[in-house]
Amino acid sequence: MAERVVGPEIERLIQLLARLPGLGPRSARRAALHLIRKREELLSPLADAMRVAHETIITCQSCGSVDTSDPCTICRDGRRDSTVLVIVETVADLWALERAKVVGGHYHVLGGTLSPLDGVGPKDLNLKSLLGRVHNGVKEVIIAVNATVDGQTTAHYITDMLRETGVNISRLAHGVPVGGELDYLDEGTLAAAMRQRAPF
Amino acid sequence: MAERVVGPEIERLIQLLARLPGLGPRSARRAALHLIRKREELLSPLADAMRVAHETIITCQSCGSVDTSDPCTICRDGRRDSTVLVIVETVADLWALERAKVVGGHYHVLGGTLSPLDGVGPKDLNLKSLLGRVHNGVKEVIIAVNATVDGQTTAHYITDMLRETGVNISRLAHGVPVGGELDYLDEGTLAAAMRQRAPF
Repeated sequence: MAERVVGPEIERLIQLLARLPGLGPRSARRAALHLIRKREELLSPLADAMRVAHETIITCQSCGSVDTSDPCTICRDGRRDSTVLVIVETVADLWALERAKVVGGHYHVLGGTLSPLDGVGPKDLNLKSLLGRVHNGVKEVIIAVNATVDGQTTAHYITDMLRETGVNISRLAHGVPVGGELDYLDEGTLAAAMRQRAPF
Repeated sequence: MAERVVGPEIERLIQLLARLPGLGPRSARRAALHLIRKREELLSPLADAMRVAHETIITCQSCGSVDTSDPCTICRDGRRDSTVLVIVETVADLWALERAKVVGGHYHVLGGTLSPLDGVGPKDLNLKSLLGRVHNGVKEVIIAVNATVDGQTTAHYITDMLRETGVNISRLAHGVPVGGELDYLDEGTLAAAMRQRAPF
């Protein structure tokens, strides 16, 4: 819209905002107008923050996460248990586990899953440094990939790859989500929850 | 979250993104990761577009809309009918009418509505230049404010203000939205649609 009613600078701002996940054309227009209204309090600081992020964010060569330092904040954290390594698909998954405060160890971010149909093979994932990290004092590897077909394929591949190291490998439990209702769960989840039932 | 797991630069980016309408803390994190993944294709261009917007966007002194030129693209458009003036609350409303391609004339953006409860009086709206614009050759004023209490209060105030000019004043029709189902409409809308029924 609006090619003839606003200048190309506003048009371009809207088009770029619309490429953010969660924003469509309509909400991108709303966001642009909000930014224009709050030009000093929000538009300018956000432009700066993006410029700074663009210039400072790097991939951690050790774990594959993103941060403004390499090694990243987590890899440098001496209070973390270096004998536990949690393998996740994405940085978003790492952040989710950190919010849940359930990991006292370190992470290894794969950057995706094996997906033969999409042409994603082992070389496309951050797997090269994994074996070296595991050899370097790790006692337990927890595979925290998504419970999808590609996630499970990847989990099997990693398990095979790490077998020779003799490291203890586990995966996240399947079961009923806390607060979830049985009626809404699929059979696979219910079967897993029943199989892995815990003493009361 | 993540104070201890990512650098302050990423933290700040997430916090500012969360202040956009339509993005909460969770979607702001997703947006930030998306930007970091697409740093050359999206993060950098968006930072530039925001910087350019911050430096170039101004309020049109004639109509009150925002653009990168003053007078704005619409006010400068000689093909528009300068005898018709459409009064809207916000720039978002102006853009909505432009998308619908229903206005061949010019606009006047109030920048809000009269709202005694919120302490918004006539001096807080873009009303000062309105009388002058109407005296300058306008034959019809269309009041296209929202069908809310504050919108209608504002419409009445403007009608009183423009009475002495003798200009022709109309407002948008009330009625059944196109595609709407009667069953879901409130009594006020149905009563208005019935009162203003049109010959078939």
